[in-house]
Amino acid sequence: MTTPVDVPVPTIISQNVLIEPDAVRILDRRVFPFEKTWVTCRDHEEVARAIEEMVTQSSGPLFAAAAGMTLAARDADRLPTAEERRRFMTAAGRRLVDTRRTNNQIRDVVAGLLEVTEAALAAGEPLAGRVEEAALDAGNRYLARSRVMGEHAAALIPDGATVLTHCWAESYLTETVAAVLRSGRRIDAICTETRPYLQGARLTAESLAEMGVPTRLITDGMAAHLMSRGEVTRFVTAADRVTMDGHVVNKVGTLQIAIAAHAFDVPYVALVQAPDRQAPGADAVELEDRDGDEVLHTLGRRTASARVTGIYPAFDVTPPRYVRTVVTDRGRFSPQDLASYYGEER
Amino acid sequence: MTTPVDVPVPTIISQNVLIEPDAVRILDRRVFPFEKTWVTCRDHEEVARAIEEMVTQSSGPLFAAAAGMTLAARDADRLPTAEERRRFMTAAGRRLVDTRRTNNQIRDVVAGLLEVTEAALAAGEPLAGRVEEAALDAGNRYLARSRVMGEHAAALIPDGATVLTHCWAESYLTETVAAVLRSGRRIDAICTETRPYLQGARLTAESLAEMGVPTRLITDGMAAHLMSRGEVTRFVTAADRVTMDGHVVNKVGTLQIAIAAHAFDVPYVALVQAPDRQAPGADAVELEDRDGDEVLHTLGRRTASARVTGIYPAFDVTPPRYVRTVVTDRGRFSPQDLASYYGEER
Repeated sequence: MTTPVDVPVPTIISQNVLIEPDAVRILDRRVFPFEKTWVTCRDHEEVARAIEEMVTQSSGPLFAAAAGMTLAARDADRLPTAEERRRFMTAAGRRLVDTRRTNNQIRDVVAGLLEVTEAALAAGEPLAGRVEEAALDAGNRYLARSRVMGEHAAALIPDGATVLTHCWAESYLTETVAAVLRSGRRIDAICTETRPYLQGARLTAESLAEMGVPTRLITDGMAAHLMSRGEVTRFVTAADRVTMDGHVVNKVGTLQIAIAAHAFDVPYVALVQAPDRQAPGADAVELEDRDGDEVLHTLGRRTASARVTGIYPAFDVTPPRYVRTVVTDRGRFSPQDLASYYGEER
Repeated sequence: MTTPVDVPVPTIISQNVLIEPDAVRILDRRVFPFEKTWVTCRDHEEVARAIEEMVTQSSGPLFAAAAGMTLAARDADRLPTAEERRRFMTAAGRRLVDTRRTNNQIRDVVAGLLEVTEAALAAGEPLAGRVEEAALDAGNRYLARSRVMGEHAAALIPDGATVLTHCWAESYLTETVAAVLRSGRRIDAICTETRPYLQGARLTAESLAEMGVPTRLITDGMAAHLMSRGEVTRFVTAADRVTMDGHVVNKVGTLQIAIAAHAFDVPYVALVQAPDRQAPGADAVELEDRDGDEVLHTLGRRTASARVTGIYPAFDVTPPRYVRTVVTDRGRFSPQDLASYYGEER
């Protein structure tokens, strides 16, 4: 005889992040696909550290930060006064936003959850349930917008195209490819390996091949050569940020390939849900510098001379003249015309 | 009491290649500086395989091929007729030239040693001594010309410069840097790691740091970003081949950085002893494609998804419009004016 037990069910905020009754669990993308392990975070501080340590990447930090705010809300509910709860939540939000400042997704999701917090405090309601629900909504909205953006992007990719991508554009890329495949077009892909973390070699290559797209891997230095031989039809990446004047901020290496794409007349297509209204130009974006030691190692093993130091500027900025199209959830824009994204709101 | 014994002394043709009485020994640059081991080659076929398997790189194949011809000459001397010796040497030369066809150094040194072979055959003399002596001469001539070329190149590097280099330019680079340092100027260096073999991370970084040059390492995708911030003064590489119309053939990745250098007005300086008279244009140069599996691995360990294939075009071609100066042993030339290198011979 079996006795039914009450097993708590996790909230699956994304494939990479689970909100569970006792903790948040984040899929460790640093070792994927060689190992599939989850990092357990008991409070928002542990989530913040996991984000800083690159446990999750691409849109992962958005989901992780939303989940971290949920843990913070649970802790805040144990505080005696509304003011203490407010202060705790504000500090938790700031901690999470400070983890990685180049991409604006953490900033935006935290801002939304702090608004929900205010509303709950004003209504005298506990925070945990409201914040978790809003976190889940934010995640779902992100995925839905990515899907719409993918449809707009797919229209730029012709049948038979060879699509080159850099780093790991996650749902931006998979939704684009899924839309291409739904339309009956066939494409193949080339991924840069994306040192030092090898997101391209591990995550992008794995995902595209899983979708049935013939996928070849190159080192980060080979893109221009393939373009010079006419072997690339489109260069497609996500953007961590697109400024209102059309600068594309993305994983370091993007600029170099975008310049080459321009030289060989290969359209560079940058994917982002929306340009960032808070960033009129590139000066408004803080570029993250990471520990140069990463460049001296490959998956934890020293691969450089012991006599040198590494430097690791994690992002670069591609000026609008090298960008053919910015694709958003509201359609395709010239990098010179991003103000029209917000046109109907004005 | 010690008895003097007759220990055979190796001929040191370069730091990387020794001609010994029983074999040729080649420093294994695939594992340097983590291990310092020598590969033993008993005949020219084993030398050819070592070159193909990348035991030695940059100018190493020139010295190895010269040493391989010495082993072939020893074997040829055991054949009964001059015609058999000639045929054996010609076949050995062809085998060595075929190992790696993009760089013309093996071709040229083998051609020179086959001329020496002819002269010895005509004079009815044994080949081994003559060929070994000529191999040594060719090696010394190469090093002397590199030194002169280094002096010419150094004049292009101002005091306080940050010099970016790609892959492993060996004596071309070390002679240039030595000439800069002799002149009392101070520079610092940035190396790309140069995947998949990591020549930059292992060999270039080690050598420059050993010379006292502050050296930083970047991944192959970061060069354009540093240039966009004004952090690179000169981009300097060796060339495996420079065609008479100014195309620079070098390790894949060079093109991408050269295009970026042009975009950010950083002079690209290509080092080569001489443009190749046998190559009027890029079509005359066979570009080596290597096993794509190398891109899936890092120092022997799998670092890519199991679902993808790798591609490894080993070289790329930089058109003259992206090259500021070609430095040779006869001075500095515009890539549009390489015919003047041979001007006085016409």
